[in-house]
Amino acid sequence: MTPEPMPLSQVGRSIPRLEASAKVTGRAEYVHNLRLPGMLYGKIFRSIVPHGRITQVNVSAARAVEGVHRVVTIEDIRSIIPNPYFGPAFHDQPILADHKVRFAGEPVAVVLAENYRVAEQAAGLITAQYEELQAVDDEVEAVSASVFVHDELKPASTFADLQHLKGQRGTNVALDYRLRHGDAEAAFAAADQVFEHSFRTQPVMHTPLEPFVSVADAANGRLTIHTASQSPSFVRIEIARLLGWAENRVRVKTAHLGGGFGSKLYIKLEALVAALSLLTGRPVKISLTMEEQFFMVTRHACTLKIKSAVDKNGRITARQCKTWWNGGAYADIGPRVTQKAGFTAAGPYDIENVALDSYAVYTNRPPASALRGFGAPQTAWAYETHTDLIAEALNIDKLEFRRRNILRNGRPQATGTVVRDTGLEAILDRLAERLAWDQPFDRGSDKLRRGRGIAIGFKAIVAPTTSAAIVKINADGSCTLYCGTVDMGQGSDTCMTQIAAEVLNIEAESIQVIHPDTDVTPYDMGTLGSRSTFHMGNAVRLAAEDAKSKIAALMAELNLPPGSNVPLVELFRRKYGMQAGNIIGTGSFHPAYAKPDHQTGRSPQVTPFWGVGGTGAEVEVDTETGQFRVTTLVNVVDAGVPINPKLVQQQISGAAIMQFGFTVSENMVFHEGQLTNGSLADYKIPGLLDLPRNFINEWVEARQHDGPFGAKGVGESATIALSPAIGNAIADAVGVRLTELPLTAESVYRAMQAAKGKPLPEQ
Amino acid sequence: MTPEPMPLSQVGRSIPRLEASAKVTGRAEYVHNLRLPGMLYGKIFRSIVPHGRITQVNVSAARAVEGVHRVVTIEDIRSIIPNPYFGPAFHDQPILADHKVRFAGEPVAVVLAENYRVAEQAAGLITAQYEELQAVDDEVEAVSASVFVHDELKPASTFADLQHLKGQRGTNVALDYRLRHGDAEAAFAAADQVFEHSFRTQPVMHTPLEPFVSVADAANGRLTIHTASQSPSFVRIEIARLLGWAENRVRVKTAHLGGGFGSKLYIKLEALVAALSLLTGRPVKISLTMEEQFFMVTRHACTLKIKSAVDKNGRITARQCKTWWNGGAYADIGPRVTQKAGFTAAGPYDIENVALDSYAVYTNRPPASALRGFGAPQTAWAYETHTDLIAEALNIDKLEFRRRNILRNGRPQATGTVVRDTGLEAILDRLAERLAWDQPFDRGSDKLRRGRGIAIGFKAIVAPTTSAAIVKINADGSCTLYCGTVDMGQGSDTCMTQIAAEVLNIEAESIQVIHPDTDVTPYDMGTLGSRSTFHMGNAVRLAAEDAKSKIAALMAELNLPPGSNVPLVELFRRKYGMQAGNIIGTGSFHPAYAKPDHQTGRSPQVTPFWGVGGTGAEVEVDTETGQFRVTTLVNVVDAGVPINPKLVQQQISGAAIMQFGFTVSENMVFHEGQLTNGSLADYKIPGLLDLPRNFINEWVEARQHDGPFGAKGVGESATIALSPAIGNAIADAVGVRLTELPLTAESVYRAMQAAKGKPLPEQ
Repeated sequence: MTPEPMPLSQVGRSIPRLEASAKVTGRAEYVHNLRLPGMLYGKIFRSIVPHGRITQVNVSAARAVEGVHRVVTIEDIRSIIPNPYFGPAFHDQPILADHKVRFAGEPVAVVLAENYRVAEQAAGLITAQYEELQAVDDEVEAVSASVFVHDELKPASTFADLQHLKGQRGTNVALDYRLRHGDAEAAFAAADQVFEHSFRTQPVMHTPLEPFVSVADAANGRLTIHTASQSPSFVRIEIARLLGWAENRVRVKTAHLGGGFGSKLYIKLEALVAALSLLTGRPVKISLTMEEQFFMVTRHACTLKIKSAVDKNGRITARQCKTWWNGGAYADIGPRVTQKAGFTAAGPYDIENVALDSYAVYTNRPPASALRGFGAPQTAWAYETHTDLIAEALNIDKLEFRRRNILRNGRPQATGTVVRDTGLEAILDRLAERLAWDQPFDRGSDKLRRGRGIAIGFKAIVAPTTSAAIVKINADGSCTLYCGTVDMGQGSDTCMTQIAAEVLNIEAESIQVIHPDTDVTPYDMGTLGSRSTFHMGNAVRLAAEDAKSKIAALMAELNLPPGSNVPLVELFRRKYGMQAGNIIGTGSFHPAYAKPDHQTGRSPQVTPFWGVGGTGAEVEVDTETGQFRVTTLVNVVDAGVPINPKLVQQQISGAAIMQFGFTVSENMVFHEGQLTNGSLADYKIPGLLDLPRNFINEWVEARQHDGPFGAKGVGESATIALSPAIGNAIADAVGVRLTELPLTAESVYRAMQAAKGKPLPEQ
Repeated sequence: MTPEPMPLSQVGRSIPRLEASAKVTGRAEYVHNLRLPGMLYGKIFRSIVPHGRITQVNVSAARAVEGVHRVVTIEDIRSIIPNPYFGPAFHDQPILADHKVRFAGEPVAVVLAENYRVAEQAAGLITAQYEELQAVDDEVEAVSASVFVHDELKPASTFADLQHLKGQRGTNVALDYRLRHGDAEAAFAAADQVFEHSFRTQPVMHTPLEPFVSVADAANGRLTIHTASQSPSFVRIEIARLLGWAENRVRVKTAHLGGGFGSKLYIKLEALVAALSLLTGRPVKISLTMEEQFFMVTRHACTLKIKSAVDKNGRITARQCKTWWNGGAYADIGPRVTQKAGFTAAGPYDIENVALDSYAVYTNRPPASALRGFGAPQTAWAYETHTDLIAEALNIDKLEFRRRNILRNGRPQATGTVVRDTGLEAILDRLAERLAWDQPFDRGSDKLRRGRGIAIGFKAIVAPTTSAAIVKINADGSCTLYCGTVDMGQGSDTCMTQIAAEVLNIEAESIQVIHPDTDVTPYDMGTLGSRSTFHMGNAVRLAAEDAKSKIAALMAELNLPPGSNVPLVELFRRKYGMQAGNIIGTGSFHPAYAKPDHQTGRSPQVTPFWGVGGTGAEVEVDTETGQFRVTTLVNVVDAGVPINPKLVQQQISGAAIMQFGFTVSENMVFHEGQLTNGSLADYKIPGLLDLPRNFINEWVEARQHDGPFGAKGVGESATIALSPAIGNAIADAVGVRLTELPLTAESVYRAMQAAKGKPLPEQ
C-alpha cells in the first residue's frame, strides 16, 4: 500500500507540536473549563464497603440542602435507561450501584446542585446501609472462591473476538484465554532442564493530571456530551445503545486532554451525565477530584507463573505461562487485556512449544482496564526476570542468551502469526552498545554496589480496529484535516499533519486539524494501544491520496497536463469562476485480521504490527539500607520510520517515566478491600528529580512495510521491558531476586536480609 | 442528471421543519445569545453627515469612562489589516470610515467595553468634526454630478463577470451593464406605435427581526467568527484575504438566523469584529439595535425608463430599458444586482429587439445590496405597469396582451439564453382562473371602487455558483448531512433531508443536519438568490448518491447480491468486526454557465434556471380619500416539483407579505442625505392584520429537468410581480396610474386629484 521508500520532505521533521503555543499561553480548552447556561453540578456519593447488598440509601438530608436540585439513584436512571448497564467487553457495569456494591468507592447516588460546593456538601449528608458480603480480593483465590462478584456474568458485548462468551453463573472468571502452540507437555517431558518461577505485579493507576470530567447537554431530542475521552466514537455508539437512539442523535466532543493513558477509554462518566441531563432537562457536569480518580480505573494486578524447558544449547524449547489478571469489580476492557497480553506472554522468543492460560478475574476492587501497554509490562516483568534467572542458572551471558532465543522476522510467534518488520535484534544490539555490555563494568563498593540489567519485550496491537479521516482542500489550497484521534499530549495532531502534508506536498504546519467531535470527525475506534500512527496515519494517508487524485482529475478536466505548476487557488478559480469550492478526500483503514481460534488461541494474523521495546539499566544499591538509584536508563523502541522524531522521543521518555513510577514507587495498597493510600500524598508518582541522571530514549528503525511511510506506533513500547531491566540490574548488583513489583528499598533490604538467612517478619 | 420522474417517497412530503420544536421551546441558538469568557462589547460611533472629510475625532471623554477597554478608529484597524477595504464586487468599503464619510450613519469609531451599556454610554461621548462635502442623493443626477462619492473606483474583486472593471476616477457609475439583442433602433423606427414611461421605486430595507450580530474570537493563531450570516464560506474567504491568512485559519460559524433576506450576505460586521478581536486579543461582540440596521444595507431605489414598440397585432417588437440603481455609498453586491436584474429588465416577453442599459450608481446613502428578488421586483414594477398601459392604449385585454407576448419555453430570452422549464404560461392561466378573469367583475360603488390587476415576471438566478455537501452514514445506518446552506427560517435543512432521504430510501426525519460552520460543512457560495434548493439540493443529491454507491460497493465486497435486505449496521459489523466505521459520500454542484459578453451583454447560458412568479390582485379604493384595501391577493410561482409543499407555500406567502410591505407602506425617507424615519415606529412593516383577507399562495409545477427531483428555487418568485399587480388593480379601479412606489392613500388621492385637474402642491 505504502509507496517504496523515497525522499521525504514532511515525514521525519521534528516540527513543534501544533498546540504547544495554545497550551503554554493558557488558551487551550479543557472540558473542566466548560460551563453551560443552567448547568447542574453533580457530586457522587460512594460505597464504603467493598461488597454488599444495599438495604437503604437515605438522601433526605441531602435533598433538604438549599441549592440541591435533585438526588439521583439507580431507580431514577432506570426511568431513562431501562437496562442501565454498560461496558466494552460485557455490559456488566451499572451506571449507579444497582442494589449491590462491588467495590469500596463505587458510585451509589449523585447529588445535583446549582454549584459544586453545594453538591459536595449535600453528598456528605447521604448515608447508606449495606448487608455486607465477603469481599473477593486476590486474583488467584477469586478463581476458586465460593463468593461471586457477579451473580451472573453478562454475555459479550462489543468485540467480535469475545462473542463465544455467553455469560454464566457461579464463577469469577470473566474470560479464560488459552493458547496452545506445538506440544508443550511433550517438550517439558523431554527437557534437559526446567525452570519455573512466580511473579506478581501491583495495582497502579493512570493518574492523568486532568481528572475525569464529563458534561452532558440534552436538548431538542439530541444529546451532546463534552468529555475528556480517548474514544469519542465508542462513547457515541455506547450511549446511543443505552438510550435506544440512533447514533446521529448523540454528539460527543473532546477538548484537549490532560493525559489519558488508557483510563479515559470507553464509558467512564459519560453514561451517568447523559442520564442526569435527560432526567433534569439541564446540562450536567461531573468532574472528579484527584482522590476520586483512585476509584475509577486501575492497571491489573497480576499473578504470573512461568515455566521453561531449556536444552543444553541454551535454547528454550517449551514454555508454560499462567496469568491471573485482577480485574476488579467490572470487566471494562480487562478481558481483552487478558487475551491480547496472552498472545505475547511467553515473550519475544522463538519457542516451538507454548502453553498459555490467561484468566480475567472479577474481584471486589475498582475496575482494572488498559494502561499503556495493555498487559505487556506485567507479562514482561515475569518473562524477562525469568529469562535472566535461566541465563544465570545456565551461566550464559544474559544478552547472549536472549540473542540465542530471540524471535526473528519471518518466524511464527506463539499465536502462529509470523513476525515481520520488528526491531527485536536491533534493539538488543543497541542496548549492548549503549551499556557497553562487552566492556568491563565497575561494580562499585561494598557499601554501594553497582549492577546492570537488560530486558526486551513486545506486544500485539489492538485488532481489528478501524480509523477514518477526511482531508479537505479549501479554495485557496489550504488544507483541513478531520481526524478523530484524540491528541492528549502525544502529538498525534502534529503527526497526522505531517503524513497528510507528505502526500500533498505541502508544509505540515499549514494544515489545520479539527479536533474529535462525532458530529464532525469521522469514525475512529479510539486513541489507544499505540494504534493511531498506524491506523489513523494510514486513514489520513488514504484521505490525502484521495484528495490528491481528485486534484489530478480537476487538472485533467481543465486540460492541464499532470504536474502543471498551477496553484490550487487558480484551479478552483478556473473551475468555479471564483475562489470557491472544496476538494474532499476520504480514507478509511482497517488492517487485515484473523480472529484467534477459540480452542487454540491461534491466528495467522493476530496483530497489524508489533510494538517492541527494550531497556537497559544500571543501578547503585546501598547494601546497608536497600536503597537504590537507577543511574542509567536506556530505553530503545522500534519506531519504524519516525514521522516526527522529537515526538517519538517524547513518547519513549514519557512511557519510560510512567513505567519507572510503576517500577519503583507506585502501588495501590488495599486492606480488606479498602484502598489505604488514595491520594497523591500517599501514592507516589515520579517527579523529574526522581529520574535517572543518565536517561537515554531512542529508537531503531524497522520499517513497517504497511505503515504510513514506514511508521509504526510507539506509545507503549518503552513501558514493556523497563521493570525487569531494573530488577535484573538490582539482582546483578546485590544478588537478590525480587519477583514482585514495585521494587523498593524495603523490598530490596528484605530480600538481602533473607539471602543472609535473616528474614524480616512480614508486616 | 436527475433520474426520470418516479414514485417519490420523501420528496413531496410536507414534513414539519426540523428546528420547529427547538424554536418554539426557546432552545434554538442565536448568536445574540453567545457570551464568551472575557468578551468585550463594541458600540459604533457613526457619522452624522452624509458626505465629508473627517478633520477630527475626539475620543478622550469616551476613553475615560470606567469599563471602557479601548476606542478604535481606522488607524488601529490598519495596524492589523493594512488595506482595510472589503466588498464582494469591489473592495471599496473601509472597515471604519477612512478619513472620509460617505453616508450619514457610517461607522467612524468603536468603543470596546466590558459590557454593552458602558460601551453605549461612552460612544455617546465621542465627537467628530467634518469638512462637509456636497451629498449625492439622486441616482440619475449622480451619473452627471461633479461631486464623486469615491475619488477613485476600485477594480473588481470576487466575481469573474465583473473582471473587466478596472476602476477609474471622476465617476459615480460603478457598473454600466449593457445588453443588445436584435436591432432595437431599427425596430423603433419601423414601429406602428411606441410607448414610453418612467418609474421609480423607493429605498426599503430587509428588516430581519434578528438585527446584525457578530462575535470574533482570535486565539492561538486562528480566528473564529460567530455571525448571523447568510454566506459563511464567503466571510471566511474574505476575512482570510483581509488578514493575508490561509482560509483554514479562519472559522465562521452560524447559529439559527432570525431572517436575512439578502441583508446578511458577504461582509457586514465580520471584518470589524475580526480586527477588534485581533487588536485586543479578546473575544469581541457587536450587536446592532433595530435602529442601527437602517444604516447597514438597503434595497436599491431605482429610476426606470422603459419604451416599447408595438405592431398592429399587439406584439411587442422592440423594447428599450434604462435603469439607474441607487447603490448608496458602497457597492456591496449592487453591481451584480444591476447586471442580473438587467438580464430580465425587458420582462418575460418574447421581444426580438431589446436595448438595455443598467447603471449601478454610487450616492451618499447607506449601501444598497441584494434584497429578495435581486432587482427583479423593481424592474417588474416598471415593465408590468408599462405592459398594462400599452394594453390599455391598444384596448386589448391585459391578460390577452400578456399571453400574446409571453416568452415560451424554447425561445431565446433577451440575453440569448433559451428559456426552458418555465411555468410562465401556466401561471397566467392559473391567475386567470383564480381571479375568474373571464367572468363579470363587480366594480363596487362610486365611493368604494373595485378593480383588479395582474402581473407576471421572472428573474435569472445567481450564476456561476457552487455548492458542496457531505452525507455521512454512521455505523448504525443513521445519516448525518453536512450542508453549508443557512437555514434562516426558509426550511432548507428540512428540504435537504428530504432530498438525501429520497436517494437513500430512508425517513427524512431520521437525518441529522449539521449547521454551517466552515470548519465542518463544505463550501457553499451562500444562501441567497433562490439558489439553495437547486444548487445545494443537487450537491446533497450527489453526495447521497455517492454514499449509496459506496454502500453498494461494500455489499459487493461482502459478496451480498445487490438489493440484499441486510441492515446497514450488519454491513458495518461484517466489514469491521464490530459496530464501527462510516461511509462518507461527497457531492459538489456547479451548473453550466457562460459569462455574458461585455459588449453585448449576451450569453447562451446566463442562468441555471428561471425564477418565475405572477400575482393577481383585487382592490377596493375609497374615492374620497385614496385609501385602498387589497381584498384578494393571489400569488402563483413556478416551483418545479416541490420538495416540501408546505415549505414552498411558506416561501410564497413570506415573499408576498414582504413585497406587500414594500408596495403599500415601507419607504426610507431621506432628506438632504439624512434618513428621517429610521425606526420601526416610523417605518411601517406589515403586520398580519394588514394582509389581504383573501390571500392565496400557490404554485405551478414546471419540472426543472436538472433540478433535484425536478425542483427549483422559490424564495423570491412571489416578490416579482406583486407591486405592479396592485398598481394595475388600483388603476383598474379608479383610472389613475401610479408610477412610483410605495402606493399609499396619499399617492392615490394626489393622482385622483391630478386626474381631475386639481393637482395638490408638492410637499
